[in-house]
Amino acid sequence: MRTFDEYRRITEAALEPMLDSLGAIPDRLKEAMLYSLTAGGKRIRPSLLLGACESASGSLEEALPFACALEMIHTYSLIHDDLPAMDNDDLRRGKPTSHKVFGENIAILAGDALLNGAAELMTRAAVRRNDMLGVRAMEIIMRRAGVTGMIAGQTMDVLSEGELPREDLVRFIHSHKTADLLEAPVEAGLTLAGAAEEQIAAGREYAFHMGLAFQMTDDLLDVTGDAAVMGKNPGMDGNKMTWVAFRGVEDTKKDAADEVRKACEALRKLPWDLTAFAVFAEQLIHREQ
Amino acid sequence: MRTFDEYRRITEAALEPMLDSLGAIPDRLKEAMLYSLTAGGKRIRPSLLLGACESASGSLEEALPFACALEMIHTYSLIHDDLPAMDNDDLRRGKPTSHKVFGENIAILAGDALLNGAAELMTRAAVRRNDMLGVRAMEIIMRRAGVTGMIAGQTMDVLSEGELPREDLVRFIHSHKTADLLEAPVEAGLTLAGAAEEQIAAGREYAFHMGLAFQMTDDLLDVTGDAAVMGKNPGMDGNKMTWVAFRGVEDTKKDAADEVRKACEALRKLPWDLTAFAVFAEQLIHREQ
Repeated sequence: MRTFDEYRRITEAALEPMLDSLGAIPDRLKEAMLYSLTAGGKRIRPSLLLGACESASGSLEEALPFACALEMIHTYSLIHDDLPAMDNDDLRRGKPTSHKVFGENIAILAGDALLNGAAELMTRAAVRRNDMLGVRAMEIIMRRAGVTGMIAGQTMDVLSEGELPREDLVRFIHSHKTADLLEAPVEAGLTLAGAAEEQIAAGREYAFHMGLAFQMTDDLLDVTGDAAVMGKNPGMDGNKMTWVAFRGVEDTKKDAADEVRKACEALRKLPWDLTAFAVFAEQLIHREQ
Repeated sequence: MRTFDEYRRITEAALEPMLDSLGAIPDRLKEAMLYSLTAGGKRIRPSLLLGACESASGSLEEALPFACALEMIHTYSLIHDDLPAMDNDDLRRGKPTSHKVFGENIAILAGDALLNGAAELMTRAAVRRNDMLGVRAMEIIMRRAGVTGMIAGQTMDVLSEGELPREDLVRFIHSHKTADLLEAPVEAGLTLAGAAEEQIAAGREYAFHMGLAFQMTDDLLDVTGDAAVMGKNPGMDGNKMTWVAFRGVEDTKKDAADEVRKACEALRKLPWDLTAFAVFAEQLIHREQ
């Protein structure tokens, strides 16, 4: 397995060629799709997919359309999330959000286009492979992104706005809105490489715990950010469905460390050198953004 | 081949079970998905797919997830089209639009959910089939619905608002926004049945001409509607990207009849009894809604 940084660069170099491979996209639509796709980000999902696939001796080249598709799905969800009717965010990663630059109508269409384009890329890759592994990987990704996965998490997030945080609801939103799209790449990457069922299960276990730690750390950073910027007390942001709201800062830190430990334990069940996956999980809880 | 009416009933009976087959969808999201899916409509796209598949001796049961997926894609495009930032429609088929009933945020998510769910249904069906025909059918549908198909047509429709009608643009918008999603089912249905390449080409030819006739008739009905309701003169609605705007009413009627003739000619290249397809095309230009 290469480093996450290398996978990030490989993914970033592939994104525009992948869009071009779909055919002649209307200029303004392609511009909006690329604007959000190239707005930075850590490319965690594609890196996980490429890393999982390569460590199980799968082909990087054949995995690349699936990796880019995942990044497109992640990106469409951010564009639609930022819309005025949703989170109404003007900025993402320091840049104006899609609807601020292109208008709401093109932002909605660019989101739809990225989701449809992701499915298109994967279907074409599956046809090219001419075996069932590509279809299986796609099934995993679409399910995790779908109405029992990421979209279910987003729906409950939207519907619970203004309610008091409840542990079961926070757990549901976290595991679907975030963890599902971190589990999908590990599972799909191993599937593409033809890994055995128990290896895929161990990969899924790693990704599940890493995904929870990821979201807990996000919540902790939110609180720290709030404290600095708005003068709120950490842990007092009681109206948001966050882990911190019902566990407090210290216990959330402990929980996150515990999830990272479980994630690394799961990795030990696999016969490959997965140092980069372990390093990634360990670094999660020390990240600053 | 059965009648279109029979295919409509088969599709309508299958839609909710198909959603249920995806797993536990959050209540409010499922409600929003079903609200728009069951709001009526002629179920033309699924009927075309089921009819094409059955006439080429394919299995109705195996084609059903693809037929329902197409209806889900059509429905998501209507939900997003009706949003305030797009066409801002309060009513569709006499019922309040999705965002009027569920709020804009859930309407956006329900649209995303139907598109993702469509891809999910088809991928699962392709895995079950365990051959490449399902993947090929899915590739056709996602491409026709995507950034070089329906979404390209919608984008140009949105971007050309307020511009004077130009023939090349009207042709582009018609052939992508409408005809693509009428060609997809014929092509995909024949593909699922394992039809030969030249048979699929003839089916595509039928669907292309029928799709143009369909949209021309839509434009004519718009004008008739306008004339009755708003007192405008037919053919004077010069600021809409419609066929009538640059061809006038009489020539558009002739064009539509011409397209129907070409559609029926293409059917004669096929070895099956496709009366229902011919009848459907003939009735198109006489429809009143």
